[in-house]
Amino acid sequence: MNIHAKRIKDLQYMLKQNALDGLLMGRTLEIGFLTGFHLDDCVMLVTRSGAWVFMPKMFVDQFRSKIDFAVAVAADNAENCAAAKVKELKLKRAAFEPDSETYTRGTAWRKAGLIEKGGLTAALRAVKEGEEIELMRKSCRIAAKAFRLVKPHIKTGCTEMSVYRRLEDVMQAMGAKGPSFNLIVGFGPDSAMPHHETSERRLKNNEAVLLDYGCVYGHYCSDITRTYFHGRPTDEFKKIYGIVAAAQKAGVAKVKHGVRTRAVDAACRDLIADAGYGQYFMHGTGHGVGLEIHEFPRLNTTVEATLRAGMTVTVEPGIYLFGKFGVRIEDSVLVTRTGCEILTKTA
Amino acid sequence: MNIHAKRIKDLQYMLKQNALDGLLMGRTLEIGFLTGFHLDDCVMLVTRSGAWVFMPKMFVDQFRSKIDFAVAVAADNAENCAAAKVKELKLKRAAFEPDSETYTRGTAWRKAGLIEKGGLTAALRAVKEGEEIELMRKSCRIAAKAFRLVKPHIKTGCTEMSVYRRLEDVMQAMGAKGPSFNLIVGFGPDSAMPHHETSERRLKNNEAVLLDYGCVYGHYCSDITRTYFHGRPTDEFKKIYGIVAAAQKAGVAKVKHGVRTRAVDAACRDLIADAGYGQYFMHGTGHGVGLEIHEFPRLNTTVEATLRAGMTVTVEPGIYLFGKFGVRIEDSVLVTRTGCEILTKTA
Repeated sequence: MNIHAKRIKDLQYMLKQNALDGLLMGRTLEIGFLTGFHLDDCVMLVTRSGAWVFMPKMFVDQFRSKIDFAVAVAADNAENCAAAKVKELKLKRAAFEPDSETYTRGTAWRKAGLIEKGGLTAALRAVKEGEEIELMRKSCRIAAKAFRLVKPHIKTGCTEMSVYRRLEDVMQAMGAKGPSFNLIVGFGPDSAMPHHETSERRLKNNEAVLLDYGCVYGHYCSDITRTYFHGRPTDEFKKIYGIVAAAQKAGVAKVKHGVRTRAVDAACRDLIADAGYGQYFMHGTGHGVGLEIHEFPRLNTTVEATLRAGMTVTVEPGIYLFGKFGVRIEDSVLVTRTGCEILTKTA
Repeated sequence: MNIHAKRIKDLQYMLKQNALDGLLMGRTLEIGFLTGFHLDDCVMLVTRSGAWVFMPKMFVDQFRSKIDFAVAVAADNAENCAAAKVKELKLKRAAFEPDSETYTRGTAWRKAGLIEKGGLTAALRAVKEGEEIELMRKSCRIAAKAFRLVKPHIKTGCTEMSVYRRLEDVMQAMGAKGPSFNLIVGFGPDSAMPHHETSERRLKNNEAVLLDYGCVYGHYCSDITRTYFHGRPTDEFKKIYGIVAAAQKAGVAKVKHGVRTRAVDAACRDLIADAGYGQYFMHGTGHGVGLEIHEFPRLNTTVEATLRAGMTVTVEPGIYLFGKFGVRIEDSVLVTRTGCEILTKTA
């Protein structure tokens, strides 16, 4: 069976499990996941026995030429047509996902009698299957290899943006479509800002270099961070690097089917706190990664989920000394029954 | 005055005009527009006399080091903290934009007493001012120049993806951060699909070539489409190309401060319909372009707005003969008092 047709079947099974008879989806992402067709301005309806995509007229021929497991319907207003179909089919418990739709659309769908049910497609997307795993492996392998290829070119005087471009170029030369997010290249004090915006700053001798980057390959995102010292590392850098590396190793060691996400976060966080730097690790430990760079589940202190074999998540603790330097070490890993497979190995 | 501080002032003036005393915003885009700080997971509150950004702790130092016209507040839950601030300030008519927030967040904010008011920031963003116009000009100039640089390399046997990458590389070499959307490179029948996904298809002799692309420069997007025939054009291609070119020229000629968006669409559409190809032009004529690749206003048959000097919009009619070829010609233009300035001139 076609992988997309199978995903629709999986969703139909989830509908049954959740006592729903339909799900309306308006985001390109979910529709792309379920059909392989990543087009804007469409709305998809999946019922227990059927699937329809309501779309601008201009997409219909293109859609039909490739897909036979969902019905393409030309619609001037996909949102209204989809809601009308729910009525026509006399669905009693059709839902939409309240975190995926705008307030305007959700309000219209509530008025049309739909109910709210979050997290269905996120749960489905979280566990990677079949070719998805190969695409994730390849996406991560490209990113990991880029570090080895780009690092020798990072020299005193080069700008952050030039490294950004080289990372992109090198990954594209290996087949990536493009970067998976706004890549972060931070030199010196810029490395201490977790979401630094890559600038024209030039690298000086004896500074930290932080590269947080990844690519999109076959629609799948990779995510990796490497930090190192350009020049002769200070004692403080060596100390901080050692703590973060130990924390990251402890986090990765914790990842396994059945483990709670908070336990992974705690493994990293406790080690950093015990070393006296708890207040300088001010973000979550990781997140799911796949069609989106940040997706379900989150590995942090505030939400909770259970890791399942087939999930791909990041483990990325960090310590940030504002005005001085920051260290973050991140790998994307595939959760398995016995532990995990590190997808972004650089050494 | 700092350009971002001025934008906040402009928004405060709009609040007054709309009898509002505050606006809550949760999208990175609007917060980036108002502060120059494009960070995820923040919520901004602008009142008639103040501005606050609620953000993850890890961003606070970075934000404060650069911005003094808005108050940075560390918040575990930015959404709730912002709503609490509305209460603390005893705002009576604080709003959120229902098309910009998720149903979940909008529902929570409605419960907290906020009201819905759409289109404020979109209207503010639509009219470009000062350095924005220069950034748009530069972004468009880079895209236009890329056509001249890349076209000579588009030869029989090369793949669509290789052209995609070359377009990106060439634009980045001129200073662009990256592509402004999933660039479309379509050869032969692929050109007949308005939203074709660039593939590994190889160019044959005597085929249409369609390039729909653009870049991001200083956060601003450009958008341009060029279509031509690789080899000896067929009579049918020449005829269709002539119609689309005339339609595009008629549309551009219509653009001017004070003109209704539908009039621009009609100028293109009527000409194509009169030539007998109305049913093959199945999308809108254009859209605003700026921080987003698609933004307010839309130039189509279904919604209506008035063009204002300073808006940057696209004019992009097309004719698509499924299975054969398609022709689309698109320029990004700056609306002026007397007409418009074509920003993506390639000849």
